[in-house]
Amino acid sequence: LQVNKLARPASAHRQTARIEAFSDGVFAIAITLLALDLRVPHLEHVTAGNLAHAILHEWPAYFAFTLSFATILIMWINHHARMAWVQHVDGLLIFSNGLLLLTTTALVFPTSLVGEYLTGPAGTTAVATYALVVLGASAAWNVFMIALQPERGLLLPGVPPAAVAATRRNVRFGFVFYAVTFGLSFVNAYLGLGLLVAMWCFWGATAYGALNVSARTHDALYNDLGEP
Amino acid sequence: LQVNKLARPASAHRQTARIEAFSDGVFAIAITLLALDLRVPHLEHVTAGNLAHAILHEWPAYFAFTLSFATILIMWINHHARMAWVQHVDGLLIFSNGLLLLTTTALVFPTSLVGEYLTGPAGTTAVATYALVVLGASAAWNVFMIALQPERGLLLPGVPPAAVAATRRNVRFGFVFYAVTFGLSFVNAYLGLGLLVAMWCFWGATAYGALNVSARTHDALYNDLGEP
Amino acid sequence: LQVNKLARPASAHRQTARIEAFSDGVFAIAITLLALDLRVPHLEHVTAGNLAHAILHEWPAYFAFTLSFATILIMWINHHARMAWVQHVDGLLIFSNGLLLLTTTALVFPTSLVGEYLTGPAGTTAVATYALVVLGASAAWNVFMIALQPERGLLLPGVPPAAVAATRRNVRFGFVFYAVTFGLSFVNAYLGLGLLVAMWCFWGATAYGALNVSARTHDALYNDLGEP
Amino acid sequence: LQVNKLARPASAHRQTARIEAFSDGVFAIAITLLALDLRVPHLEHVTAGNLAHAILHEWPAYFAFTLSFATILIMWINHHARMAWVQHVDGLLIFSNGLLLLTTTALVFPTSLVGEYLTGPAGTTAVATYALVVLGASAAWNVFMIALQPERGLLLPGVPPAAVAATRRNVRFGFVFYAVTFGLSFVNAYLGLGLLVAMWCFWGATAYGALNVSARTHDALYNDLGEP
Repeated sequence: LQVNKLARPASAHRQTARIEAFSDGVFAIAITLLALDLRVPHLEHVTAGNLAHAILHEWPAYFAFTLSFATILIMWINHHARMAWVQHVDGLLIFSNGLLLLTTTALVFPTSLVGEYLTGPAGTTAVATYALVVLGASAAWNVFMIALQPERGLLLPGVPPAAVAATRRNVRFGFVFYAVTFGLSFVNAYLGLGLLVAMWCFWGATAYGALNVSARTHDALYNDLGEP
Repeated sequence: LQVNKLARPASAHRQTARIEAFSDGVFAIAITLLALDLRVPHLEHVTAGNLAHAILHEWPAYFAFTLSFATILIMWINHHARMAWVQHVDGLLIFSNGLLLLTTTALVFPTSLVGEYLTGPAGTTAVATYALVVLGASAAWNVFMIALQPERGLLLPGVPPAAVAATRRNVRFGFVFYAVTFGLSFVNAYLGLGLLVAMWCFWGATAYGALNVSARTHDALYNDLGEP
Repeated sequence: LQVNKLARPASAHRQTARIEAFSDGVFAIAITLLALDLRVPHLEHVTAGNLAHAILHEWPAYFAFTLSFATILIMWINHHARMAWVQHVDGLLIFSNGLLLLTTTALVFPTSLVGEYLTGPAGTTAVATYALVVLGASAAWNVFMIALQPERGLLLPGVPPAAVAATRRNVRFGFVFYAVTFGLSFVNAYLGLGLLVAMWCFWGATAYGALNVSARTHDALYNDLGEP
Repeated sequence: LQVNKLARPASAHRQTARIEAFSDGVFAIAITLLALDLRVPHLEHVTAGNLAHAILHEWPAYFAFTLSFATILIMWINHHARMAWVQHVDGLLIFSNGLLLLTTTALVFPTSLVGEYLTGPAGTTAVATYALVVLGASAAWNVFMIALQPERGLLLPGVPPAAVAATRRNVRFGFVFYAVTFGLSFVNAYLGLGLLVAMWCFWGATAYGALNVSARTHDALYNDLGEP
C-alpha cells in the first residue's frame, strides 16, 4: 500500500514527461538558433578599426537577439510552471502546445528582420512582423490555457482554480496588448519595440516574483503536488 | 518482493529510455531547423512597403514550414504512442527507428524546395520530391511496425494485438497513399500538396481523437501498462 | 535495508545521467545538422526538368548525408551500450567523451566536402579529410575505452572483463583501419569511401547482432546490472 | 517513514530537473552549432592540391572551433557540478542561469570572427570581441554564484560553505582575468588568444582533478547529498 502510494506520482507523471522533454528541446533549440543571426561582417578593406565599426554597426542584431532570447526564456519558465499543473494530456493540450512551439520556433525569422531592417525606412514593417509572430504565440497561450480549464479534467487535484483563472486573465490581456502593439508598430518602429520590451519586463518581473515565492514556500509555482 | 515489483518497471523502462530521449531530440531539432528556411528578403530599394511585399511574397515558405512542422509534430505524437508499447529493443527496432529519424531529418530539404519553387514552373518537381521523402518516412514506419509485431516479443504484456494490427494497416495504407501522391505531384503541384495536407488532417484528427480517449480513460494511448 | 538496496542504483545512476543526456543531445543535434547540407539548387532557367536534373545531380550530398547519419547513429548505439557499464565518472572519461563529441560534431564539415567535391578532381582530398575526422573519432573511442579499463574502477560490478577487452580490441582495430583508409583515400576517392562504407556495414552488423542478443536474453548489451 | 525518506530526494530534485535539462539542451546545441562555422571552401580552380591548401588555410577556424568547444564543455561540467548543490530555485538563480546560457549561445559569433579575421590586420578586434563575450559569461557565473550563497537558502543541506566560497573566489578571479585579457587583446591578438587558452587549461585541469577526486571518493563534486 505504501509502495503503491510511492508509485503513483511516477506513473501519473509519465503522461507529461515526454511532452515536457520535447517542448524543452524545442525551446532550447529555438533559443540557441537565434545566435545564427549574429553574422560575421564582410569587409572590403580589413582593418581593426573597420571590423570594430562593422561589429558595432550591427547593434540591432544584438538587441533583437537579446529580446528574443529573453522572450523565449520567459515562455519556457511559464511553460514549465503551467505543465507542473498537468496530470492528463488530451488532443487540445497537445495541439495548442504544438502551436505554441511553432510560433516560438518561427520567432527566429522576425528576429532576423528586426536585426537587419530596424534602423532603416522598413523598420516599421520589421517590428510589425515581430509583433505579429508574438501575437500568434499569445494566441497559442490562450488556447493552451483553455485546454487547462479545471472543468476539462486535465489538472492535478489541488491546483487552485484561482491561479488558473489568473493565468487565463494574464494571457488574455497579453493578446490584446500584442494586437495593439502590432497596430502601433506601423506608426513607429521604436514605439512598437518599446512596447514589446515593456511587456517582457512585466512578464519577467512576474516570473521573478513567482519564482521567489516558490523558493520561499518550497512549493507554489513548481509545486508538483506529489507531496502533501 | 514488493520492492522487486516496484523496481521492475523502472529497469524495463531503461531499455527504451535513451532511444526515446534520442528520438525526441532529433524530432525536436528537425522541427526547429525548419525555421531556418524562413529567410530574410534582401531588397534593392528598402521601403516599408517593399519589405512587406517581399515578406508576403514568401508565403510558400511559410506554408511549407507549417506543413512540415505539423507533419513532424504528428510523427512525434505517434512515435511516442508506439514506443509506449515497447518493453525490449532489438536491432530491427533500432535501425528502423534510425531510418525514420533520417527521413524526418531530411524533410527540411524538400521543405526548402517547396518554399522556393512551388509557384513557378518547377513546382511539380518540388512537390514530388517532398512526397518522395514522406514516402521514405512512411516506408520507415512500415518497417518499424514490422519490428513491433507481437510475435517478435518486444512489446509489453497487455498491448492489445488488435491495436497493433490497426496501426499496421494504417501505415500500409499511408504508404500506398504517398506513392499515389508522388505520382500525381508530377501532374499538378497543388494537387500533390493538397493530398499531403489532406493526409495530415487525417493523421491529425486520428491522433487528436486517440489523445482524447487516452485522457478520458486515463490510459489507452499513453498507457505504460506499469499499473494494473 | 531493502529501501537502501533500491536507492543505490538510482544514486549510482545519477553520476552518469547528465553525461548521457548531454551526449545524447550532441549526437542528436550533430545527426540533424547534417540535413543543412542538403542545399536547394539555384537555377538560371527554372523548369521542372532542370530542377529534377539539379536535384539528381546532388547525389553525392545525399550519399554523404546518409553515410554520416549512419556513422553517428551507430556511434550513438555503441556509446549507449558502453555508458551502460559505467558507475563512476572521472576526468579521463569526461574528457575523452568530450573529444568523442567534438569529432562527431566536426563530421558535418567533411560531409559537406564530400557532398561538394566527390565527383571532381578534388575528390581524393575530400574523402581523405572525411577519413581523417573519422580517425580522430576513433582515437577518442580508444581513449574512452582506456578510461573504462576495469582496473580504473569506473565500471559497475558484474561487467564481464572479457567484454571490455573485446571492445578495446575492436576500437584498436578500427583506428588502424581508418589510418589505412586515410592513406588509400589519396590514391582513389571511391576506394576510400568504399572502405568507410564497408566499416560502417561491419559496425552496423555487429551492433545489430548485439542488440538482438540483448533483446532475446533481456539483458546483455543494455544490461544495467542493477538487477541480479 | 522509510518510504518518505526515499521520496524526498526525488521531489526535491524535481525543482531543478527541468532547469538542468533545459540548460543541458542549450549547452549541447551551442557546442554543436559551432561546427557550422567550419565552412567548405569555394575554389576557382578545383584540384586536389588546391582544396587541400584551402582546407589547411582555414586553420584559425579549426582552432577557434576547438577553443570554443572546450570552453563550453568545461562550462557544462562546472554547471553540472554547481547545480548538484541546489535544492530550491528562485528568480535570481533562473535569470542568472539565463544570462549564462545567453552568453554561451552568443559565443558562436566571436568564434566565427576569430576563425575569419585572426591572421589579418583585424585580428585584435576579433580576439577582443571573443574576450568580451567570455567576460560576459564570467559576469553571469558571478551572479549565479551570488544566487548560490548559502544564506540565500537554495542549497541542499550539507553543501560545505568552504566549497561555495572557493568557487566564488574562482569566478571573481576569472572575471578580473578576462577583463585584463580583453584589454591586452587590443595590443596583440595572439597574446589575447594565448591568455584565453591558458585560462582554459587552468579550468580544465581544475575540473579534471575535481572529477578524479569525485570518482575516487564516490561523492565530492557530483555528490547529490541524497545519501548520507
